[in-house]
Amino acid sequence: ERLRALLETHRFQQFIIAVIVVNAATLGLETSVTVVERYGTLLTVVDHLALYVFVAELTVKLYAYGWRFFRNPWNLFDAVIVAVSLLPTAGGLSVLRALRILRALRLISVVPSLRRVVTALLTAMPGMSSIVLLLALVLYVTAVMGTKLYHVTAPEYFGDLPTSLFTLFQMMTGDAWSDITREVMAQHPSAWVFFVAFMLVCTFVVLNLFIAVVVSAMEE
Amino acid sequence: ERLRALLETHRFQQFIIAVIVVNAATLGLETSVTVVERYGTLLTVVDHLALYVFVAELTVKLYAYGWRFFRNPWNLFDAVIVAVSLLPTAGGLSVLRALRILRALRLISVVPSLRRVVTALLTAMPGMSSIVLLLALVLYVTAVMGTKLYHVTAPEYFGDLPTSLFTLFQMMTGDAWSDITREVMAQHPSAWVFFVAFMLVCTFVVLNLFIAVVVSAMEE
Amino acid sequence: ERLRALLETHRFQQFIIAVIVVNAATLGLETSVTVVERYGTLLTVVDHLALYVFVAELTVKLYAYGWRFFRNPWNLFDAVIVAVSLLPTAGGLSVLRALRILRALRLISVVPSLRRVVTALLTAMPGMSSIVLLLALVLYVTAVMGTKLYHVTAPEYFGDLPTSLFTLFQMMTGDAWSDITREVMAQHPSAWVFFVAFMLVCTFVVLNLFIAVVVSAMEE
Amino acid sequence: ERLRALLETHRFQQFIIAVIVVNAATLGLETSVTVVERYGTLLTVVDHLALYVFVAELTVKLYAYGWRFFRNPWNLFDAVIVAVSLLPTAGGLSVLRALRILRALRLISVVPSLRRVVTALLTAMPGMSSIVLLLALVLYVTAVMGTKLYHVTAPEYFGDLPTSLFTLFQMMTGDAWSDITREVMAQHPSAWVFFVAFMLVCTFVVLNLFIAVVVSAMEE
Ligand code: NA
Ligand code: NA
Repeated sequence: ERLRALLETHRFQQFIIAVIVVNAATLGLETSVTVVERYGTLLTVVDHLALYVFVAELTVKLYAYGWRFFRNPWNLFDAVIVAVSLLPTAGGLSVLRALRILRALRLISVVPSLRRVVTALLTAMPGMSSIVLLLALVLYVTAVMGTKLYHVTAPEYFGDLPTSLFTLFQMMTGDAWSDITREVMAQHPSAWVFFVAFMLVCTFVVLNLFIAVVVSAMEE
Repeated sequence: ERLRALLETHRFQQFIIAVIVVNAATLGLETSVTVVERYGTLLTVVDHLALYVFVAELTVKLYAYGWRFFRNPWNLFDAVIVAVSLLPTAGGLSVLRALRILRALRLISVVPSLRRVVTALLTAMPGMSSIVLLLALVLYVTAVMGTKLYHVTAPEYFGDLPTSLFTLFQMMTGDAWSDITREVMAQHPSAWVFFVAFMLVCTFVVLNLFIAVVVSAMEE
Repeated sequence: ERLRALLETHRFQQFIIAVIVVNAATLGLETSVTVVERYGTLLTVVDHLALYVFVAELTVKLYAYGWRFFRNPWNLFDAVIVAVSLLPTAGGLSVLRALRILRALRLISVVPSLRRVVTALLTAMPGMSSIVLLLALVLYVTAVMGTKLYHVTAPEYFGDLPTSLFTLFQMMTGDAWSDITREVMAQHPSAWVFFVAFMLVCTFVVLNLFIAVVVSAMEE
Repeated sequence: ERLRALLETHRFQQFIIAVIVVNAATLGLETSVTVVERYGTLLTVVDHLALYVFVAELTVKLYAYGWRFFRNPWNLFDAVIVAVSLLPTAGGLSVLRALRILRALRLISVVPSLRRVVTALLTAMPGMSSIVLLLALVLYVTAVMGTKLYHVTAPEYFGDLPTSLFTLFQMMTGDAWSDITREVMAQHPSAWVFFVAFMLVCTFVVLNLFIAVVVSAMEE
């Protein structure tokens, strides 16, 4: 009981926030070669200390709350992030080392206003699922067609299905879509029909995705 | 009567959804040369089986509902998509072969949530028709002017009317519009008036298109 | 009286719409060299006929309505567009010839739904004037600063005030703004402060412009 | 008392607006080498006169209102802008000379409609702080990861933390994000996961930022 009261004091939470911020800063500084050369050991020490604090915090929480610990999804979020940091990184897995900065995301579970915002974002998601599914379907169908039609003409854009999916996602964001279209049109003059139709459908569906989210936000 | 009841069972609809998904997957796998080399026959068999299922489904529906079959636009949608797949593709018409993936769009008519979303999108369209017509008019007028003024200066962008229409549609999406404008300005220093005016008018009209859709969505 | 009744019949308005559409089509066809070679005279004849119809229509309207003709801003719109077409184009003023396609915009004054949309757009404008003025002020101030700071570094982007204004308008639309920023940063490493601040301020002001328009549209 | 009445007359405020506009114009003209060659002295005289007027105005206001002068944040805004102009610019600090055009921003504090718009913008800011903080956190975490993973592959984009932050801000605005992604993918084929995830998260958060602002604007 007393442990739980301690865990929920304002001061304890501010201490955790401070550790997260300091740790985020040291992980940021670690990206600089000159800083690492001079203060490398210090950064490693701080990093290890922060990790000890996080592990200790989770252990105490687990002890204090028992099984109820796992009912709070934010606790799971924290646990996963800390677990990632405990994985052995010696084996040259630079990706795992890079993932340590994800600890900074613990700010989301600790700072109430961030937590509220992210909860709101996540609750907005189910209402979008149908339109996102529709968008994914359109993307898949267009990617299969694009690959079949243009894999010889423009292999760097439509060489295989994953490449086409990436290219069409890029076009959906409006980035350099006309360059790609003009390149394909050089050999297939009527390719503009395919791409302009894709752009119009995407814009229209995204517009409606947007509206669905605004309208559902209004209703609350 | 019994046939109709069968067609409307949850299990039957899930079977059709499964066939569509499997068929979409095989058509996607067909884009990979290595997969086709190894499992080509299997993919073709699955593809033909799926098509038989779709034709059978439509035939049974047509028999069960009679003329009422044609009153439901989604049935027509399904029929057209299946019909496209039955067209002879031997004659080197790779476009027709590529269109087979459109069958995956049958998911829209079969999955209720997708159907609802697309119906909502389509009902939003009439309210947009006036602004879309206005946008088309602006595009046409600007394309004729652009062709007349710049077909010598920048033939790859304004060589003829269709090219100008494509270029201005591209500019309307904001993609690389300044490159084109700077290229034309190299010879017609005052061309920025033409293009900036076009960008402002388009942005303004699209903004109002957007608002019209949001407002009409709110009213419902 | 009778003349006015005639002018307002549905049939007469449809005749005018038809003339506008046909004329827009001939002006579009005129952009094609091969079409002009074959049917050049026909296109010119149709173009002149259409112009005669428009002039006759305006004259009759002026006669029928008297001074009240000028009270309707759409009549002035029509009159200006027709007047532009009557200016002598012989003197090599290809711009004036290109302006003849503006006649197609007469569709806006003749088709009721287009007229309503454009009226709505125009009535939305006064509510935006303060934010547009603010945006213009931000653009001007940034252009003067950009010219002073970078006219030597990047003369093609910030060589003089008009060039800077165009460049910053381009950046405001998000088109290739990072290319320009990186080019300037090659010599002024801290230039990103200037450009990122500009992007953030513009985005924020445009966002609020947008919201102002949505909110005022809702209130109606 | 009388002084205050004078300061608040419509005529006095219009005089100040005129001085600001004229000064903004002369500072704009100063960017042109040919204009400076011909009318350089005149421009400098007008610029000094305008500055004297501003200093005099502030002094009189300070005398008339006493300590209450500092309670109005717009007075502080004016004072800071004028103070910047009084800093010695002789020492080759071309940046300070360029900052003189900020005086044109005094229009915001003097023209009531601009003042109202900017006040509205500023009051909209606190409601956005949580989402902006979230966006900054996402940007920081992604920048640290990007630097760790790709600083060797693409040093011009992810060489160090500030460079990565700029690159990711650029990608967030959608500008040329696919070029950067394709360049990194040439060596890290799975890099698209990182960048597409970043784009999706950013779009989703920005969309919700947008909605938060619209909804809070509606509530007023
Ligand atoms: Na771009
Ligand atoms: Na863009």
